[in-house]
Amino acid sequence: MYKSSLYKNLLVIGGNVAGLAAASQARRVSSDLNITVLESGKFISYGTCALPYYISGIVKNIDDIFAYPVSFFEEKRKIKILTNHKVVGIDLFKKEILVNVNSSSENKFFGYDRLVICCGAIPMQHNIPGINAKNVFHLRNVEDVLNLKKYISLSDPSKAVVMGGGSIGLLAAEALNKLGIKVAVVEKADKIFRDFENEISTILHKKVKLDGIEIHIGCSVASINQDRTGKAISVSLSTKDENMTMDTDLVIVSTGIIANTEFLSDTSIELGINKAIKVTPKLQSSQLNVYAAGDCATVKNIITGKDDYIPTANNAAKMGRIAGENAAGGDLVFPGSVGTKTDKVSGLETAKVGLNLKDASEFGYNAFKISGSYYSHASAIPGAETITITIIVDASSRKLLGAQMIGKEGVGKRIDIFASAITGEMKIDDIYMLDLSYAPPVSTVWDPVNKICGKATLELKKRKF
Amino acid sequence: MYKSSLYKNLLVIGGNVAGLAAASQARRVSSDLNITVLESGKFISYGTCALPYYISGIVKNIDDIFAYPVSFFEEKRKIKILTNHKVVGIDLFKKEILVNVNSSSENKFFGYDRLVICCGAIPMQHNIPGINAKNVFHLRNVEDVLNLKKYISLSDPSKAVVMGGGSIGLLAAEALNKLGIKVAVVEKADKIFRDFENEISTILHKKVKLDGIEIHIGCSVASINQDRTGKAISVSLSTKDENMTMDTDLVIVSTGIIANTEFLSDTSIELGINKAIKVTPKLQSSQLNVYAAGDCATVKNIITGKDDYIPTANNAAKMGRIAGENAAGGDLVFPGSVGTKTDKVSGLETAKVGLNLKDASEFGYNAFKISGSYYSHASAIPGAETITITIIVDASSRKLLGAQMIGKEGVGKRIDIFASAITGEMKIDDIYMLDLSYAPPVSTVWDPVNKICGKATLELKKRKF
Repeated sequence: MYKSSLYKNLLVIGGNVAGLAAASQARRVSSDLNITVLESGKFISYGTCALPYYISGIVKNIDDIFAYPVSFFEEKRKIKILTNHKVVGIDLFKKEILVNVNSSSENKFFGYDRLVICCGAIPMQHNIPGINAKNVFHLRNVEDVLNLKKYISLSDPSKAVVMGGGSIGLLAAEALNKLGIKVAVVEKADKIFRDFENEISTILHKKVKLDGIEIHIGCSVASINQDRTGKAISVSLSTKDENMTMDTDLVIVSTGIIANTEFLSDTSIELGINKAIKVTPKLQSSQLNVYAAGDCATVKNIITGKDDYIPTANNAAKMGRIAGENAAGGDLVFPGSVGTKTDKVSGLETAKVGLNLKDASEFGYNAFKISGSYYSHASAIPGAETITITIIVDASSRKLLGAQMIGKEGVGKRIDIFASAITGEMKIDDIYMLDLSYAPPVSTVWDPVNKICGKATLELKKRKF
Repeated sequence: MYKSSLYKNLLVIGGNVAGLAAASQARRVSSDLNITVLESGKFISYGTCALPYYISGIVKNIDDIFAYPVSFFEEKRKIKILTNHKVVGIDLFKKEILVNVNSSSENKFFGYDRLVICCGAIPMQHNIPGINAKNVFHLRNVEDVLNLKKYISLSDPSKAVVMGGGSIGLLAAEALNKLGIKVAVVEKADKIFRDFENEISTILHKKVKLDGIEIHIGCSVASINQDRTGKAISVSLSTKDENMTMDTDLVIVSTGIIANTEFLSDTSIELGINKAIKVTPKLQSSQLNVYAAGDCATVKNIITGKDDYIPTANNAAKMGRIAGENAAGGDLVFPGSVGTKTDKVSGLETAKVGLNLKDASEFGYNAFKISGSYYSHASAIPGAETITITIIVDASSRKLLGAQMIGKEGVGKRIDIFASAITGEMKIDDIYMLDLSYAPPVSTVWDPVNKICGKATLELKKRKF
């Protein structure tokens, strides 16, 4: 328990993963702080990552995606929760934030001694004609999916265009496809899952297509064309070679996110990559008494040692907890992130950690990549599936810089072996010899993780790096 | 490629995981060595761990458990394979081994320049009356399971007693149970899976019982009682309190193994724990030119730094490869093992790495354990199962010493995160903050691995260690 004689009021901006982690941790370590969470939306404490599963119906009841109700925080944790409270300004000198309540015309002031900003990220904005048509949807929050679900049940759409071939876009496409809607995914880059190496993304591309989803890569949406009622009815694409128009009944925009920090643009709080709040290892912003965590903050990339933007829920939860403890008087350090992520799309688990080859080369590493395909478990036991792995290695230090994987099973948690190894600064030689578990239904005698690193040692020998 | 002017003939004793890994690696790094593998049994290159799955019928064809046929080694790798060649003696001065071929009355000599001993382990011997009855079976090799399968199909047994409540015993019990045979497991220790903490073994115990398998703990078999034809018909148990006799149609002995090194007992090759050949980090025995790997050799325990006996296939494969390379002129070091293992018994995955609390205390660590139960993935997504984890922590250094897990899914490879963390000498604080993957169908935002280590940090704070 910390003493908080110098600060009585802790304000937290944002009522989702990072914000609630911060408020809860502050309460755990301080019984006498006044803790208030201000959330711009109507809902708190939900898993953004679970939203696509509500669209598809895998999650049947929207209530199931909420981790805890408001009453839990208010009664059990003595944390005041104010929803529909949108922060529009901040006075760092007076230690006050300006809040718009319930979209009213008047704003309210809230004073703080310590502030934790966990306001998340918002969809990247586009200047595309028609982007504001009523049947164009984002997938960032509960309101978004409720709107989409309502539209689907009322309008019974048969065709959809999804802008963006990242994980949210593909999960949305899969969900709509499951509902019987014909989906086309439009991706600007030359591949879906653009952060992944071709060895991995190609496998996903084929499977998504096989499931009946159209994919247009190297394409951008030039305009969304509306009828007289303001409803999007088609999408015009511009590619390198030609222009084409696709009829559609709805559009989903999932082309990436940017830190939700517009309200800080006139303040002295320093912003960094992707407009995220620059934070110290203790998650302090450039302003004393102001902390930040989650999708609105920068993250130290453990591999490069540099500021990065890695807006994962796993980072948000940890950062929130640390920012909350420090704001309440603690002195913890967030070690940073190796960018571990996983997804399950079209029946395939994908996973990634660390740098891809392009990033590694840009950071000056003497990097190479190597790939292999292996069984997920002993082939004698039914259900063994192929896993494809690509790893990125620094030839000079022999350290692992990144790893990517795809397969029907045994991918999401296998990537964590690499995550742990990268965090421990292991060389490929160490990972090749890592003592990994074996039983015929679980793995092969040499785990795929051992195997790909063994292959990399041979590659290094061959290349005489 | 190494030059082998000093050694032309490489003999490998043992034609399973370690031996074939050694021979294959020797060939990879030396094209001109004469490489001969001597195997005492009829079969080579099979997965011992897969044998129980052949009993149950999950593996339908015995051929499926063989990794490679003899012809593969002979033709592709130019390795001579001699089966039914049982090594009975060794002359270290003359560099010769004495081999009994096809159980004939005469023995043959084989000279070597370098020798790799990978003769594995054999079942622990017992002086129990009746142990040699014709329907008493072991489960160490292909002959064993073929005999058992033959007996089952000819005699249609309805009851079985399994001696030993370790993984092989329970896998055998499960397999027999699946075939409709009523099974009783007899375990000397006060629990099944005796290396595991009670938090884990109790869960397994309950599930195995629920599946209809009887378990008698704290019990030993006093005698196996035979009819006049030499067939076991009942088993007499002695417990602390009482004696009881159970009728049975067959007995399986799976009470542990011991290194198969009887033929070395009169030599100057030094034996260590469990009669295993003591090896250096380069896997040399106490004799120049003699290497050892796999279940017949000691293993460096990475945590304690001491010699240990950890007869897993994962160790055997790695040790074999390194011993083979070194015997052919290489200079590699085997880093050792953290004792990672997993099993799937009665629909539950179990896994263990590192020390249990008893071992940790005996090694002088200021150790404590802590347990928790968590969802394997987000509970909103169907199929989330409870995982129970116990970890062993050194309170003085805050380092993780061991971890154990049980659950229906997501256990076998999650243990490898701990294996990697222990190898990297991570503190519980580091693992608490480890960047582990999250997606609703794969994990929870804080992975169970993070959670249990977070809980351990709180415990340390509370105890003021």
